[in-house]
Amino acid sequence: MKLFSSVNDVTDLNQMVQLALEQKKSPYAHQELGKNKTIGLVFLNPSLRTRMSTQKAALNLGMNVMVLNMDKEGWALELQDGVVMNGTTVEHIREAAAVLGQYCDIIGIRSFPGLKDRDEDYSEMVFNKFVKFCGVPVVSLESATRHPLQSLADLVTIEELKTRPRPKVVLTWAPHVKALPQAVPNSFAEWMCKADVDFVITHPKGLELNTAFTQGATITHNQDEALQDADFVYVKNWSAYEPYGQVVEVSEDWLLTNDRLKITNDAKVMHCLPVRRDLELSSEILDGPSSVVVHEAGNRVWAAQAVLKTMLESL
Amino acid sequence: MKLFSSVNDVTDLNQMVQLALEQKKSPYAHQELGKNKTIGLVFLNPSLRTRMSTQKAALNLGMNVMVLNMDKEGWALELQDGVVMNGTTVEHIREAAAVLGQYCDIIGIRSFPGLKDRDEDYSEMVFNKFVKFCGVPVVSLESATRHPLQSLADLVTIEELKTRPRPKVVLTWAPHVKALPQAVPNSFAEWMCKADVDFVITHPKGLELNTAFTQGATITHNQDEALQDADFVYVKNWSAYEPYGQVVEVSEDWLLTNDRLKITNDAKVMHCLPVRRDLELSSEILDGPSSVVVHEAGNRVWAAQAVLKTMLESL
Amino acid sequence: MKLFSSVNDVTDLNQMVQLALEQKKSPYAHQELGKNKTIGLVFLNPSLRTRMSTQKAALNLGMNVMVLNMDKEGWALELQDGVVMNGTTVEHIREAAAVLGQYCDIIGIRSFPGLKDRDEDYSEMVFNKFVKFCGVPVVSLESATRHPLQSLADLVTIEELKTRPRPKVVLTWAPHVKALPQAVPNSFAEWMCKADVDFVITHPKGLELNTAFTQGATITHNQDEALQDADFVYVKNWSAYEPYGQVVEVSEDWLLTNDRLKITNDAKVMHCLPVRRDLELSSEILDGPSSVVVHEAGNRVWAAQAVLKTMLESL
Repeated sequence: MKLFSSVNDVTDLNQMVQLALEQKKSPYAHQELGKNKTIGLVFLNPSLRTRMSTQKAALNLGMNVMVLNMDKEGWALELQDGVVMNGTTVEHIREAAAVLGQYCDIIGIRSFPGLKDRDEDYSEMVFNKFVKFCGVPVVSLESATRHPLQSLADLVTIEELKTRPRPKVVLTWAPHVKALPQAVPNSFAEWMCKADVDFVITHPKGLELNTAFTQGATITHNQDEALQDADFVYVKNWSAYEPYGQVVEVSEDWLLTNDRLKITNDAKVMHCLPVRRDLELSSEILDGPSSVVVHEAGNRVWAAQAVLKTMLESL
Repeated sequence: MKLFSSVNDVTDLNQMVQLALEQKKSPYAHQELGKNKTIGLVFLNPSLRTRMSTQKAALNLGMNVMVLNMDKEGWALELQDGVVMNGTTVEHIREAAAVLGQYCDIIGIRSFPGLKDRDEDYSEMVFNKFVKFCGVPVVSLESATRHPLQSLADLVTIEELKTRPRPKVVLTWAPHVKALPQAVPNSFAEWMCKADVDFVITHPKGLELNTAFTQGATITHNQDEALQDADFVYVKNWSAYEPYGQVVEVSEDWLLTNDRLKITNDAKVMHCLPVRRDLELSSEILDGPSSVVVHEAGNRVWAAQAVLKTMLESL
Repeated sequence: MKLFSSVNDVTDLNQMVQLALEQKKSPYAHQELGKNKTIGLVFLNPSLRTRMSTQKAALNLGMNVMVLNMDKEGWALELQDGVVMNGTTVEHIREAAAVLGQYCDIIGIRSFPGLKDRDEDYSEMVFNKFVKFCGVPVVSLESATRHPLQSLADLVTIEELKTRPRPKVVLTWAPHVKALPQAVPNSFAEWMCKADVDFVITHPKGLELNTAFTQGATITHNQDEALQDADFVYVKNWSAYEPYGQVVEVSEDWLLTNDRLKITNDAKVMHCLPVRRDLELSSEILDGPSSVVVHEAGNRVWAAQAVLKTMLESL
């Protein structure tokens, strides 16, 4: 595997999940594979789980890790082509990526969307330029429109905790005060649409996701209907795809509570974190037995380790 | 040892000091112990000595180290319970701690006091929440009211350099322009009160420390009297405990000079660093033969290594 | 080698270049040398290439690496002697350096010039104080007036790519909107003056470099004349040495283009990076076959590794 940016980069979803679970059982079994191999983790945005879990995965595989907070420790990056760089940006992504490729065997990069220009964000301009110019295998640490390491960890978590062969999985929109990217819901949707689950998306009117990611999903504006008999409820806020990047006024109450969970099949509640308590998700759920958010975050290590192991084998 | 937050977490002070001195003699003797074990060093505030010496100690023990500057690299943390998170904080300490516990075998955390609300600071709200929710052994990298790795290094330094069995150790207040925490003096006081030394605290009126930390110490407002025959003089500024966190106007000159040292028993001068030259402590002392501040800072490695070794053995 | 700060710290230039090329051929041949040795990389300014390539070199040699972004992660440093520290600086470089020397076997430090006070910058006050007080071998990661790891990598690149025994190497000034240090051109000049090359410097009037660095070079204000038959063209902006640190108005067009390259001997174009596209250097060159800037950046690893290997052998 030379690229891990979306579900389409994985040939066999089930095999990748099993590989992650094997890593979880034997974290240190493949340390020879990563010996003298270096991963560079490049952050253009904040990160806690991705930063720490990917480091851990790489260390488990015997790799060296170098972390770079690009704008704080390196130089302000120019992302556009064809501009005379007489402003505030100091280095073009073409050079930065190519140079990092000289120092690393694998690169992970995180780059959030601007949420201003939909075409630019959905063309994955930054991520794709980085891939194009760095010349080494790249793993997405969340790009403008996808967060595949999160989605793989989510699928691993569902596989571990499901109580029937084909569980019902519901992605529900949740309230927020800021405009958040669509990367996590997009990514979760495209992974669930390919996984062996019954997948339902529920959100208020006006918050439709890009249909490229939701092919095969059942979509409803009725949260109660969606939650009916659900085995897993994935809670996440996102801003509007149209008008792009806007916070849409929602008058109904979409905050998930224990009361609402009653109509589910004793559902496990998932969230990618960070989560704003009692805004996106109620404390009573987060502190109660239904929440699996910490377990899910723990699985980020094994998802990353499965991906890195696969990449190392193809070097 | 599952927790290292105060002198009370150490069963045998002398044994811990000896363990630190053994690490100093043979820094790499226990690298198998830390193999495939990961320490996460989490900073909510700046750090030089603690950051570098704890890394070094962990590396000496064969551990993996992951450093996280929480607010700069991760997310702005919510520390209070029961708030709807619709403001500027992005992640609650409950989730952050629990997730970090998934990735680390041991966690070190630094969290300074706010110096606004004494009850909150002295309840060690942030540190204790972190301990409660992370689920793995925790070592304090300085909390609101204590800095135990510093105090252990201080005791190691005194043990190494003392010229009589029961040396006289003086903690003297020093001037500063900013309100500093009481963590270092509190911590030094509670360690010295338990150590085999003759311990005296001297400070201007109005700068009394919390008596919980000073049981057994001789306390005087007369610096000269305190310095008499001292073997070690520990220089440190702190802000007032009452009114809490205030810089108290002090009219007398409390700055330690070589002249004042003459009444000591050729005392070694200690400071936890960073030190503001010629404000807290005179350059003539820092650059002269009495100062052991760099040696003391060097011992931070062995203090941390003794604590981490003890923790690794109990995993 | 106890110090790597300028070309004068290298006894045999050719031998050092050969050592770098040997490291490139066998990057992991000397991992026993660095075992349990720690390098501290201390940054007072941003860094991408130096940060990553020096880490990589140290890891290749089996060393532990600790990175410190001094002002962001540590404390604001006081650099001047004899001041009462009652302002915004928290720690004096004397203590900071000495303490870091306790934790590291080798220290690398980056410290840019202020470009205000020429005497201070050219006395290398910060770098030299650090060297004086840290007590361990120091490698410059770029100081106020020199960038020797860059220059060694440049020489390695020239050695690798030259097509005749004594190539013609041209350092040409390039336009910029900000005042940049003279460290890279100074350093490149002093290395080229000692290397077995025909060395020419070209720049507009008023942008003369300090002659201490250019002894033996041919200097001309006529870029075309300089480029004639050149094998390597090193492009770099710098601010004026006199009046110090000023951006000098230049009316002629100094931007290098493919058209101008025609008069060279099919020259390779070099730049230390970061480069502002179409301001300092044209995109057509950077994206074309003449540019070796990425290859050159890649060689930073082997330059650093040669220096660190030499230092490790002298510990």
